[in-house]
Amino acid sequence: MTEIGFVGLGTMGSAMARRLVDAGHTVRVWNRSAAAAAPLVAAGAVAAESPAEALETGLVFSMLANDAAADAVFSAEALAASTRRPALHVNMASVSPALARALASRHADAGVGYVAAPVLGRVNLAAEGKLNILAGGDPALVDGVLPYLTVMGQRVWRIGEEPAQANLVKIAVNFNIIHAMEAIGESIAIVESHGVDASGFVELLTSTLFGGVSYTGYGDIIAHRRYQPAGFTLPLGLKDLGLAEDAAAEVGITLPTAPALRRVFETALAQPGAEALDWSAIAEVSRNSAG
Amino acid sequence: MTEIGFVGLGTMGSAMARRLVDAGHTVRVWNRSAAAAAPLVAAGAVAAESPAEALETGLVFSMLANDAAADAVFSAEALAASTRRPALHVNMASVSPALARALASRHADAGVGYVAAPVLGRVNLAAEGKLNILAGGDPALVDGVLPYLTVMGQRVWRIGEEPAQANLVKIAVNFNIIHAMEAIGESIAIVESHGVDASGFVELLTSTLFGGVSYTGYGDIIAHRRYQPAGFTLPLGLKDLGLAEDAAAEVGITLPTAPALRRVFETALAQPGAEALDWSAIAEVSRNSAG
Amino acid sequence: MTEIGFVGLGTMGSAMARRLVDAGHTVRVWNRSAAAAAPLVAAGAVAAESPAEALETGLVFSMLANDAAADAVFSAEALAASTRRPALHVNMASVSPALARALASRHADAGVGYVAAPVLGRVNLAAEGKLNILAGGDPALVDGVLPYLTVMGQRVWRIGEEPAQANLVKIAVNFNIIHAMEAIGESIAIVESHGVDASGFVELLTSTLFGGVSYTGYGDIIAHRRYQPAGFTLPLGLKDLGLAEDAAAEVGITLPTAPALRRVFETALAQPGAEALDWSAIAEVSRNSAG
Amino acid sequence: MTEIGFVGLGTMGSAMARRLVDAGHTVRVWNRSAAAAAPLVAAGAVAAESPAEALETGLVFSMLANDAAADAVFSAEALAASTRRPALHVNMASVSPALARALASRHADAGVGYVAAPVLGRVNLAAEGKLNILAGGDPALVDGVLPYLTVMGQRVWRIGEEPAQANLVKIAVNFNIIHAMEAIGESIAIVESHGVDASGFVELLTSTLFGGVSYTGYGDIIAHRRYQPAGFTLPLGLKDLGLAEDAAAEVGITLPTAPALRRVFETALAQPGAEALDWSAIAEVSRNSAG
Repeated sequence: MTEIGFVGLGTMGSAMARRLVDAGHTVRVWNRSAAAAAPLVAAGAVAAESPAEALETGLVFSMLANDAAADAVFSAEALAASTRRPALHVNMASVSPALARALASRHADAGVGYVAAPVLGRVNLAAEGKLNILAGGDPALVDGVLPYLTVMGQRVWRIGEEPAQANLVKIAVNFNIIHAMEAIGESIAIVESHGVDASGFVELLTSTLFGGVSYTGYGDIIAHRRYQPAGFTLPLGLKDLGLAEDAAAEVGITLPTAPALRRVFETALAQPGAEALDWSAIAEVSRNSAG
Repeated sequence: MTEIGFVGLGTMGSAMARRLVDAGHTVRVWNRSAAAAAPLVAAGAVAAESPAEALETGLVFSMLANDAAADAVFSAEALAASTRRPALHVNMASVSPALARALASRHADAGVGYVAAPVLGRVNLAAEGKLNILAGGDPALVDGVLPYLTVMGQRVWRIGEEPAQANLVKIAVNFNIIHAMEAIGESIAIVESHGVDASGFVELLTSTLFGGVSYTGYGDIIAHRRYQPAGFTLPLGLKDLGLAEDAAAEVGITLPTAPALRRVFETALAQPGAEALDWSAIAEVSRNSAG
Repeated sequence: MTEIGFVGLGTMGSAMARRLVDAGHTVRVWNRSAAAAAPLVAAGAVAAESPAEALETGLVFSMLANDAAADAVFSAEALAASTRRPALHVNMASVSPALARALASRHADAGVGYVAAPVLGRVNLAAEGKLNILAGGDPALVDGVLPYLTVMGQRVWRIGEEPAQANLVKIAVNFNIIHAMEAIGESIAIVESHGVDASGFVELLTSTLFGGVSYTGYGDIIAHRRYQPAGFTLPLGLKDLGLAEDAAAEVGITLPTAPALRRVFETALAQPGAEALDWSAIAEVSRNSAG
Repeated sequence: MTEIGFVGLGTMGSAMARRLVDAGHTVRVWNRSAAAAAPLVAAGAVAAESPAEALETGLVFSMLANDAAADAVFSAEALAASTRRPALHVNMASVSPALARALASRHADAGVGYVAAPVLGRVNLAAEGKLNILAGGDPALVDGVLPYLTVMGQRVWRIGEEPAQANLVKIAVNFNIIHAMEAIGESIAIVESHGVDASGFVELLTSTLFGGVSYTGYGDIIAHRRYQPAGFTLPLGLKDLGLAEDAAAEVGITLPTAPALRRVFETALAQPGAEALDWSAIAEVSRNSAG
């Protein structure tokens, strides 16, 4: 097995890196706070002193927390400082399409390949290698990393030849989730106010015309108002809504419902402590509007 | 088997009445244009000369085309003219909650029981007895008609003791469908404009986080723009959206996205010939907004 | 709500009776050891002093442990001693078709109606009212108890006009489960002996061509050899296999695999302590046969 | 895109090769009767004059009809006659484990890599790229062909490092299908003889405890006795049963039901014309045994 790098060891990154270690690869792992690397090192990974060291393997996967972290760790300087070529960076985090384009260009300038491979699925699926992976980038580069992606995910979806397209599709999926949560919230507000039980209504929805974890999972959370611990917070949800708005604006597309959805997020976030709530707490806005 | 009545023989009503005939019941059937009764009579039903004759059996099911038809056929005069008591009317059409309340009151005045039992499912499921039936009304009355409802549906959902509650839940389900169609339309508009194939995107959605016929069925229709023949037309969709708005307004609930959804329907309907399109054609509004 | 009786308060019977209590019915409950009635009485049920007292309500459901218990509690003497007529007994336990026929005849002699309504589903589904109920008997009698059956189950399947037919179908379903468990066991024995992981193989089966709890549930149990606590024991499984053999023999049908399946059960039961194992432990017979 | 070869253009092979052509690869196709290549050539493939020519690309996939064909086309002589090295042969047909071992050894002698990649799924799934692919062989070789396998299948299952293990797992999956068909057949024989409708019984099974195409697909075929056209014939089914028996015997495992299943196949095949029937026609053996 070859030696590879993995940068960004939050809960998702750690679970994904662990799959690679367990599959027999030598994985040089790095995280800003080094403690996160300990369990992986115990399982057989090698601690890298710096992201550059991980990149020097020639193939580095990253799952950094946000755009700023990805931007900083894979700066032009950092890329230029690495010497190993050919080299490839597979960014599995859900960065913005704008950063994806900047990173693609920056990597190209440095002679490093760049593939976007954001994922659908939470940490439990990551641990079982059952993520859905949305791959964007040069098909030959994607081909080359399929052996690793198929260890981390049950299915790899080829989205397009531009890395940013994969990030865009991830945003479009999340936009559908926002709609589903809002629809559940508004419709529960209606039926509850007329004396119909919310959880019975959700059972009806999900036993008949609606399925998938978007409806079953969020329906259950909303019916029982279990917004903590958050799987994905309200501020992150609002950020993703903004990315959908940006992606539409860029090509002159109108998203008729987006302004209303934005106001819902803002109303939800105006409550004290709302930053820590799951994004499905937008459902409370309609519920709370009842006299 | 007892004798019962069935009024309103459109494609849905005919399929439902046929189930009752095939189960061995003597069914007195009536339709405004009598020709619709012919296939049922050939299968063993008895043609009634008037709705009153169907009501005289003591138990009549109805599946009339719209509020106006239900209001006219089950007028105070018609109910008063029937003499058989006890008598029960099970209204399986998706009338407005307002009419449901008016009918419940009117039937009570005439000493006739009233149950609302709107359905989820199209004519193919009706023919196989696999509808989902949303039953609202006096539990003892609902109990009494379970032998008939379980012939027409695979599952009977007890919604509440007021008939109008069942109609309200049907509207809330449809409101979720409207949201799903709009979310699919807006997100397809985004990804298509960035070079991603619509049907591949729908396959991704429905293979991962979204399921049920709302997403699989409408996703497929929207991806391929197959808006004709319509399963449910744009004007009917807009009417149902209005019923959701009314139901919310009645109890002082705010539906943040409803005004935007209404504008989408209105924009879609402004196109020539749009009245005949499936309601999922609302998805074209965002797609058409692209430069 | 009417007053009804419920006899036999094991874990399944208690969960089912509880649904009836929670739906607002007055339920006279009886169990051989009276302590089992306490939680139900706390929830609003009324303790009956004898099965006869439950039968005197005119409608009694039973979920007794086995044929012998049902035979004893609903003896000709017990039925004759009850005076309330009309009266109906709905037997929801999985008794043998032979006893079903004897009970049907005995009840008829006493002027008491008899319906068989065995169920699919364990106690968790019973508690949620999501059992599948297989109803056999006079359609008018089944119609009359639908209000109660739909409280205990999500779907009522009309099997036929003879009560024994419902018990027979239950046995035929269980025969399919036995085959599924044996197929899983034999095929795991093959692949494991050739170095393929059992749980990976089960995941493959259930992600591709096989589904439903028979394959997913028992596949998981067998892959990980979790035969305790038993959901349904080996001796009960062998008894059900015998009932399938009897049902076939009665009409001159050959079941080619039954003798082999019987030997598998007997081999499994020859191990010390096997009586307490789940019936899926038959899968170990092939696994243990490996040199 | 690289140039590759594809040998064996039956309905499955043609659909699979077409996926590779449509993905932009240059595919040298060969079939014993050359006419089968015409549609692929029209779609952009290149006709090879001989299997050797396809092998000369350095990477050849094969989907030949049976063991004999695979054995003949990939003879030691044919392999030795090819000069291109490194070279890899991915055999996607369901050959016997014995031939898989012989081929693996023969290829190794010739310095050609060998991977087994039998598939689950019929031609409709092949055409949509939704096969499940069971991959066995050197992990590095499997890694290298993932770009092609993920074009033909929705998911690639890594079975083990020996090619024969993948063929063995395919046999074990088919053994489960045989059991399912036999269980359906025997249980339908029982219930039908007692007056219960076969298709209603299958609907009960597949709506409750059994799912996946094994139960839904074969349940439907058996209930309605639609054994023609055959998806997979009785003689092929008996051959696969024999392979399961061989695989068990090789490691000293006892398959208790196999002798009975073999007799069922032999009895089914004793009927005139049975060779052309679908293997699920084994279900008729019990049904026909009824007096």
